[in-house]
Amino acid sequence: MNAKDRGRSRRRFLTEGAALAGLLSPAAAGVLGAMQSANGQTATPKPEAAAKDTRAYGERSHFENSVRTPVSYGSSFNLLPESLEPPPDSDTPLQDSIGIITPSGLHYITSRWRSKPPDIDPQQHRLLIHGMVDHPLILTMDELKRLPSVSRVHFIECAGNTSPYEKPNAETVQETHGRTSCSEWTGVLLSLLLKEAGVQKGASWLVAESADAGKHSVSITLSKAMFDAMLVYGQNGEAVRPEQGYPLRLLVPGFEGVRNVKWLRRIKVVDGPYLAKAESTGYSILRPNLDGKALWYNFELGPKSVITFSASGSRKLSGPGFYEISGLAWSGGGAIRRVEVSTDGGRTWKDAQIQEPVHRVAHTRFRLGWNWDGKEAVLQSRCTDDQGSVQPSLAEFAKTWGVKPEYFKETQKNRQNVNHFNAIQPWRVASDGSVHNAIWL
Amino acid sequence: MNAKDRGRSRRRFLTEGAALAGLLSPAAAGVLGAMQSANGQTATPKPEAAAKDTRAYGERSHFENSVRTPVSYGSSFNLLPESLEPPPDSDTPLQDSIGIITPSGLHYITSRWRSKPPDIDPQQHRLLIHGMVDHPLILTMDELKRLPSVSRVHFIECAGNTSPYEKPNAETVQETHGRTSCSEWTGVLLSLLLKEAGVQKGASWLVAESADAGKHSVSITLSKAMFDAMLVYGQNGEAVRPEQGYPLRLLVPGFEGVRNVKWLRRIKVVDGPYLAKAESTGYSILRPNLDGKALWYNFELGPKSVITFSASGSRKLSGPGFYEISGLAWSGGGAIRRVEVSTDGGRTWKDAQIQEPVHRVAHTRFRLGWNWDGKEAVLQSRCTDDQGSVQPSLAEFAKTWGVKPEYFKETQKNRQNVNHFNAIQPWRVASDGSVHNAIWL
Repeated sequence: MNAKDRGRSRRRFLTEGAALAGLLSPAAAGVLGAMQSANGQTATPKPEAAAKDTRAYGERSHFENSVRTPVSYGSSFNLLPESLEPPPDSDTPLQDSIGIITPSGLHYITSRWRSKPPDIDPQQHRLLIHGMVDHPLILTMDELKRLPSVSRVHFIECAGNTSPYEKPNAETVQETHGRTSCSEWTGVLLSLLLKEAGVQKGASWLVAESADAGKHSVSITLSKAMFDAMLVYGQNGEAVRPEQGYPLRLLVPGFEGVRNVKWLRRIKVVDGPYLAKAESTGYSILRPNLDGKALWYNFELGPKSVITFSASGSRKLSGPGFYEISGLAWSGGGAIRRVEVSTDGGRTWKDAQIQEPVHRVAHTRFRLGWNWDGKEAVLQSRCTDDQGSVQPSLAEFAKTWGVKPEYFKETQKNRQNVNHFNAIQPWRVASDGSVHNAIWL
Repeated sequence: MNAKDRGRSRRRFLTEGAALAGLLSPAAAGVLGAMQSANGQTATPKPEAAAKDTRAYGERSHFENSVRTPVSYGSSFNLLPESLEPPPDSDTPLQDSIGIITPSGLHYITSRWRSKPPDIDPQQHRLLIHGMVDHPLILTMDELKRLPSVSRVHFIECAGNTSPYEKPNAETVQETHGRTSCSEWTGVLLSLLLKEAGVQKGASWLVAESADAGKHSVSITLSKAMFDAMLVYGQNGEAVRPEQGYPLRLLVPGFEGVRNVKWLRRIKVVDGPYLAKAESTGYSILRPNLDGKALWYNFELGPKSVITFSASGSRKLSGPGFYEISGLAWSGGGAIRRVEVSTDGGRTWKDAQIQEPVHRVAHTRFRLGWNWDGKEAVLQSRCTDDQGSVQPSLAEFAKTWGVKPEYFKETQKNRQNVNHFNAIQPWRVASDGSVHNAIWL
């Protein structure tokens, strides 16, 4: 049996197999020799690859081409001079995600409301904590790194991730859900510094300010700051990346991305929220009764999940047989406790396996084996967090808005932004193995 | 108070402070304006930094310069043509490590016994499982990725890490301990494939072979393979890096690094260990009674820990006051349960705080606050795993070898390799704040 025949026999196995064993092709006699020569061919080093010195600091294989893609809607709302305009937002390629850690080089970037990422020398950077405190503090990065630290795995998600307003015709999981990422963050608990500074009676909020030219600022409740907010200088074992706020970022676990102030240089303790630029329009959401008024300071992201492997954009299924459906679930409210997967358009649901250990307010990998019979199928996932909150269907999400599901298809026409959109995401697998966004079906 | 005066006042605080509060300098009135202008200066984008497109796949800040360093001893033992010789081994810069994940670009590299890393096209790569099995298997990478997968955080450590034979005069923690790294690995449990293949009666070992030109091979017990070995294609959320075995690596948690075969292409199920090249000399260790015979197939790494922040190579302490001592502990035998730290040369020990959740057979970050009084001090850490195994002192380690501690200073002269060296590592802090390797004191 030559190599071509073996390939054909394997493909036949895959189309026939309905059990796991069907995926695995038996090795024909004498296959080892053929394999060795095949590997021998592929093992020839390419001159250009060999030329690069990746021994000091490594790079990925030149066969890997998963990249962040720019988002097509406009960039910032800053009305800044062109020289200070940030580059367009970039979505994480979730279709290629593995495990729960997002590679730092592929962490999503949102620059809306912010200006061009500043290039900060950590030796020169200072953090000021002042306002309603007994002892204002000013710290260098070296001083921050001498303090008691913690490392925690947390996701950061843009409030507008999955918003049908921004991308009503999104096709791939990178476009629909690509503005969430998860890292091991290391730094100092903000509560430690606030205790040292001595918060005064009457203080209830703080305002955090970035060192970018636009001075991006947000309001955070003091209770959240004292609960689990961190000043992070480490991301996945090294310094926070430049687009993520190098050298210092405010991490507010589970709050919408915009509150996680990058290039953090100032925290002012105050007695009420400030109407910061990003808060007065863009990050409000309409009140459920649609009376024309908005909810302000609605920070916490709800439970959300999405299938990433066997999602649109991930790949075409190569034929009937066994597949592992895999995806990510997360919640701003706590830890993921359950993920259910449906392969029949929502008629029945099965509990997926959850990757342990589950971290609080972190991407949680789920997996479920599936024998595809080759017929059209609709795949979707639904998560529940440890507060008992369940990810809603589109119909349920629409109900809390007091509208019909169709409303969201037209939010651009209605000029109605939709933040915190966390409806269940269905993917339609066509009989040819291609996968499509089925949110509007 | 101008900026210079503020700096002086902060420095004074640091030299006086014995409590945490002593580290934190109060902000003088009017400091905000000065800060803003300082940050304004540092925020000027550098032209060369702006020129690089890091939106598709990001890079770290150009202010970060932590790199793997080549090891000075000879490279491989392969006696291969020069064109196939691997580059020298490279040590991870542990002095800069944060949290428990090693950035993939800084994962240590050992190429001894192997040849030049092959440049493998994943579309062409095949894995063969054969030998004493009922159904030999051959798998493409796409087929492997359809199978049920797991993600687990595990360290890989070179058997010769910290060996005084190889680097008796090592000064920094990068030189002494830099051949261990920790990643979130994703792939398929080897047990799943062995069950599918149907292991025959009488089989007890397997031989794993790499696709490098030198065909690096090792023997692994079948029991370990069935227990927790993995075929990994994912590392920290993306494909395994080229120097770590792209596209497929055998992961044998807690076994010495050389057994974790990179560029894996073949597993043969057999009825006894093979005397593979790397096994016949280099990875044996002397029997405790030093009768001239060696222990073969001694795979599992013992409990080990090292202080990384306030270690030699990390930085000079800038004066008396509060510091957080931080480091890593790990064990091939299981999970780390306890880490103790001594700051007085081993007279007294305190329990360090351990970063949760603790992963099995993984780097575990420990931390302990310390008020340095400015006098000479010796810092060291000692860990215990969940099997009750305790990291030995140098004297205890020497006792199991039946030699005096001084013996290890001279192992190069004695031509006596020392693998699995896991003695407690002391660091001497001099009164000027500089830190030195104190293993031989």
